[in-house]
Amino acid sequence: MANLTAVLPRPGEIVLEERPEPRPGPRDVVVAVEAVGVCGSDVHYYRHGRIGSFVVTGPLVLGHEAAGTVVAAGAEAAHPVGTRVAIEPGVPCRRCGQCRAGSYHLCRDIQFLATPPVDGAFTRLLAVPDDFAHPLPEQLDAEQGALLEPLSVGIWACRRADLRPGDRVLISGAGPVGLLAAEAARALGAGSVTVTAVSPSRLAVARRRRLDAVVDAAGGLDLAPEFDVLLECSGAPGALAAGLRCLAPGGRAAVVGLSNEDEVSLPLGLVHDREVTVGMVFRYAHTWPTAISLAATGRVDLTGLVSHRFGLAQTEAALTAGATTPDLVKAMVLPPHESLDGAA
Amino acid sequence: MANLTAVLPRPGEIVLEERPEPRPGPRDVVVAVEAVGVCGSDVHYYRHGRIGSFVVTGPLVLGHEAAGTVVAAGAEAAHPVGTRVAIEPGVPCRRCGQCRAGSYHLCRDIQFLATPPVDGAFTRLLAVPDDFAHPLPEQLDAEQGALLEPLSVGIWACRRADLRPGDRVLISGAGPVGLLAAEAARALGAGSVTVTAVSPSRLAVARRRRLDAVVDAAGGLDLAPEFDVLLECSGAPGALAAGLRCLAPGGRAAVVGLSNEDEVSLPLGLVHDREVTVGMVFRYAHTWPTAISLAATGRVDLTGLVSHRFGLAQTEAALTAGATTPDLVKAMVLPPHESLDGAA
Amino acid sequence: MANLTAVLPRPGEIVLEERPEPRPGPRDVVVAVEAVGVCGSDVHYYRHGRIGSFVVTGPLVLGHEAAGTVVAAGAEAAHPVGTRVAIEPGVPCRRCGQCRAGSYHLCRDIQFLATPPVDGAFTRLLAVPDDFAHPLPEQLDAEQGALLEPLSVGIWACRRADLRPGDRVLISGAGPVGLLAAEAARALGAGSVTVTAVSPSRLAVARRRRLDAVVDAAGGLDLAPEFDVLLECSGAPGALAAGLRCLAPGGRAAVVGLSNEDEVSLPLGLVHDREVTVGMVFRYAHTWPTAISLAATGRVDLTGLVSHRFGLAQTEAALTAGATTPDLVKAMVLPPHESLDGAA
Amino acid sequence: MANLTAVLPRPGEIVLEERPEPRPGPRDVVVAVEAVGVCGSDVHYYRHGRIGSFVVTGPLVLGHEAAGTVVAAGAEAAHPVGTRVAIEPGVPCRRCGQCRAGSYHLCRDIQFLATPPVDGAFTRLLAVPDDFAHPLPEQLDAEQGALLEPLSVGIWACRRADLRPGDRVLISGAGPVGLLAAEAARALGAGSVTVTAVSPSRLAVARRRRLDAVVDAAGGLDLAPEFDVLLECSGAPGALAAGLRCLAPGGRAAVVGLSNEDEVSLPLGLVHDREVTVGMVFRYAHTWPTAISLAATGRVDLTGLVSHRFGLAQTEAALTAGATTPDLVKAMVLPPHESLDGAA
Repeated sequence: MANLTAVLPRPGEIVLEERPEPRPGPRDVVVAVEAVGVCGSDVHYYRHGRIGSFVVTGPLVLGHEAAGTVVAAGAEAAHPVGTRVAIEPGVPCRRCGQCRAGSYHLCRDIQFLATPPVDGAFTRLLAVPDDFAHPLPEQLDAEQGALLEPLSVGIWACRRADLRPGDRVLISGAGPVGLLAAEAARALGAGSVTVTAVSPSRLAVARRRRLDAVVDAAGGLDLAPEFDVLLECSGAPGALAAGLRCLAPGGRAAVVGLSNEDEVSLPLGLVHDREVTVGMVFRYAHTWPTAISLAATGRVDLTGLVSHRFGLAQTEAALTAGATTPDLVKAMVLPPHESLDGAA
Repeated sequence: MANLTAVLPRPGEIVLEERPEPRPGPRDVVVAVEAVGVCGSDVHYYRHGRIGSFVVTGPLVLGHEAAGTVVAAGAEAAHPVGTRVAIEPGVPCRRCGQCRAGSYHLCRDIQFLATPPVDGAFTRLLAVPDDFAHPLPEQLDAEQGALLEPLSVGIWACRRADLRPGDRVLISGAGPVGLLAAEAARALGAGSVTVTAVSPSRLAVARRRRLDAVVDAAGGLDLAPEFDVLLECSGAPGALAAGLRCLAPGGRAAVVGLSNEDEVSLPLGLVHDREVTVGMVFRYAHTWPTAISLAATGRVDLTGLVSHRFGLAQTEAALTAGATTPDLVKAMVLPPHESLDGAA
Repeated sequence: MANLTAVLPRPGEIVLEERPEPRPGPRDVVVAVEAVGVCGSDVHYYRHGRIGSFVVTGPLVLGHEAAGTVVAAGAEAAHPVGTRVAIEPGVPCRRCGQCRAGSYHLCRDIQFLATPPVDGAFTRLLAVPDDFAHPLPEQLDAEQGALLEPLSVGIWACRRADLRPGDRVLISGAGPVGLLAAEAARALGAGSVTVTAVSPSRLAVARRRRLDAVVDAAGGLDLAPEFDVLLECSGAPGALAAGLRCLAPGGRAAVVGLSNEDEVSLPLGLVHDREVTVGMVFRYAHTWPTAISLAATGRVDLTGLVSHRFGLAQTEAALTAGATTPDLVKAMVLPPHESLDGAA
Repeated sequence: MANLTAVLPRPGEIVLEERPEPRPGPRDVVVAVEAVGVCGSDVHYYRHGRIGSFVVTGPLVLGHEAAGTVVAAGAEAAHPVGTRVAIEPGVPCRRCGQCRAGSYHLCRDIQFLATPPVDGAFTRLLAVPDDFAHPLPEQLDAEQGALLEPLSVGIWACRRADLRPGDRVLISGAGPVGLLAAEAARALGAGSVTVTAVSPSRLAVARRRRLDAVVDAAGGLDLAPEFDVLLECSGAPGALAAGLRCLAPGGRAAVVGLSNEDEVSLPLGLVHDREVTVGMVFRYAHTWPTAISLAATGRVDLTGLVSHRFGLAQTEAALTAGATTPDLVKAMVLPPHESLDGAA
């Protein structure tokens, strides 16, 4: 099988290449990739060639939100050919203190798809260790399988914010991560879920979902400090500071989105006597089983998020669509298709 | 207002009495009781005059699952006359180490409705401290307000079992507590909820609710040891031991139901290398806000549980109905009614 | 008994007044105050008349780190006359959601000594609820009883930072709170405790205590990012940002000291992929029993911290001593003494 | 180097064999074993050939509490030749859900030294993965390195009992595990540590250590129910039931010792309204770094526990010494010595 792949040779350019078919190690499976979500980080690497200290120094394949079907398996691999799987993109060393403590996402030697220099999933065939290929139940299709990645971010954000049943949850940002964090929060017992956004298109999308409130924050955020949990998913400068002001005493914030600023100014004097806690969110650990369970049983709703679809040859269009398409929510690249024009 | 009250003068007998109207202290409210659920403990006191070390030594008013409307309020009470409230039945000392640590249900000096010598709620008027009268949102009626008590048991059982999102949950017992524990587990993110019961009527009720599986345990429980959480709600001898055998490594059990046996024989040798944890459940602490939030937003379904209704003069019938009515789920006494025949 | 009291009539002035003797409520005790530590917040109120949103608008008695002996007791009070007690200075409402959940320090209606408009402990006689007067074991004298307050801050900081056995702990600031946080961290199983300070006198004090390392941070902090826990106790501008840079992946910071700045600039971009957590520390809840237990058994060392002692008539000298006395660690006011010159 | 090894060919017999020298895999180290503690489980396998479902079906090498020096290392191994290390005896699959969640001790495929069919450490040379060979600081000698294994059990028991600073801790059993659990409890902030034992020799040993109380339980245990934590380390029938009766409301028990009985009868009726929690303890996970840290800094005292020492040729004597030596605390086999007579 030819392994057609979309490659970023340098920032601002995507080229299609035939790459060698991957050969699975004894515990690996080779997945025929069927759907890959486009993430903001992919777009950022495409445009700028770096995110913080992660710098693209050679040709790189982007894409890390992926699902597909096993087409080859190593001798000891757990999943037979034909198994439909969602791919968890970060494979850790399995030996360091973080791995042993269950925080494998903090492993210094993690190999994470589409993070330089590890190639990602905008390709036809991808080899992954079997335990990072999670079998999908029949209720979930490949696109939903790919959406388990941003859902995992949302689940992890809820955990990092120590979300407790009945909590009043404020989510800033109505992109895919914010909307899926909202789904996760609801499924985990949040008493209410309020989402803020600034763009009319994002607000419109949010209003179509089952949320307790959607707030237009374009003119600033003026909510009473009565929220137990803040999930900052927008990455907008000032969003974290504004959200912190809305937390009740004992409130907990999880910071998913971070603006490019290295330094963030926070009103700690204000929230000090409310004894607020702020936790950074970086990826996730062992969230796929939970994500699959919540999605397969309908506790989390993965429908209505994929707004645009592209073939593998249109990967560059998928990466640039956001800039020109205000109503884009989540773009998917479907590698089996060589050509799809982006329409939903 | 006359304060008609159903009194247990001695085991096996209920008489109606006119009692003095309660006068509220400065932070109390007087609640006109509109619905009181009949609990197994009420039936047990009625029949046997004691539960373990709690012994009825004088006339006692039973009933501790109650809701109604504020009809009088102390000068500093938080809720005005007319407020619809659910009553949390255990008022602690507010000063001991347990109270200060947030475990006020373990306060040695707690005053708990219908636990000797504290009178309960089978009455027209009841005075309670304002913070133990939780305002009800309009979505919840008085019967649902009364059901917040067994729902609180279910929520607390989930917390005691450290229920985590995605957990596979086994609940033994399909009475009101088991069924509401199932609702709580689902609302808190359980991946699957399986309920076991032995009587055909209980199994039939369970099968009408949104559960992932209902298992007939009449001939014993033969499930693979793959559950993360066990909530033992049946109190049947042997149920805890049988349930423990179904737990996966790292499994956690919460024991709500306890048979009258003082000593329980457990297969600890078997579950030792699975490192199982077993937590007793005794009442609950600060669950009402969560319960109200989950019920008002439909995350928990309180409908379909009240199977029989009685007037205050039929309290004794309500207490004895279970013995003769196989399809009884939850009996409610509605004190404003002097006479109701028990039909649903 | 005359109740001589040191009063702050306006910022920058302390006068002695005879005040009425307090009369205990039924559950109160009247404590003859024997030792009161001078805290940085007392000094700040004395100088500036406010801390953030807490503003002195009338005469105020300062002092909130106190211990003494019960000299009068209400009819139902738990401690008889003659009981030696340490005073916990914040009495909450006991009814709100925070109180009920065990977070009574976050109660909006808390009455906290020496926080406007509540009078504090620079006085001969003080009435407190019996459960906020903690009996002292014979091993602890009154000054050590007073030091339980800053020790409580240290214990609570460790809890807020979720300190786990074996953790490598970095503490910025070697004032009484920093040094007692170090004692607490050690007693709770820290693997190593490193304290930073900038002034030679503070560094000298720190070097006399049982710490694993003392670091001079005068020229900046240049430590490898290998600490699990940061306890920021200095309140120096930039100290939190500098400390965060020293945290390992998964690190947790507790912020005790806050500079007067409302806004604090933090290097969140840097610590994002280490998934650091930052928790504000505001006072403490139910720490006295732990503090007493750790101090009475020698797990925490309370000796060597009181450097200067003053009589009640020298309270103003005690409040101003820090500005002119580089080797001051903790100043104590001893109210039974009318005149003490401040020497150790 | 000849690899002299003590082998259990069948229950009740130990023979010395020359075995092939182990060859390290790329990430393995070969350890020259210098000290191996004799554990009750070794004695049990020696006598009975099985523990529960673990059955000896062929020749087996016993011993799993080991330390030594690296004498050969795979190409990618982290520790160079000459590194002194303590061996963690259970190597998990690193891939299953338990491994990924940090509970690798619950891995179904764990390879645990001296658990059939995996050979143990009564040998001269042992190959282990580098991350299960923990470098020893110079403060700890090989015997202390071997004692990190039972100390790990004690640390894990404290974690399983959710030991909190200030807790009053009851430990039943004064063997090495009980005594090291006491050390761990103290180092983790226990307010008091009480140890019970029944034999005069064990009581005498316990009285020589820094404990708050030692209680003779030979005539039964009659302590007030005021303990927060129970660590059952004796394995005596009835010890768990007796200990549970001593727990205060909210108390937590960790069960290390289990008698051979499959079924244990517990007074759950009694402890139900105290809401007690009982957790099984099976081995440990990621405790070595903590154990090393606590031992190297003297927070835990590993001295005074090794009472008898044997050469490798006296392994059988080491296994049988306990039956005839009332004052035996911990027997060590020192493989470099061919002949040692057992004296301390």
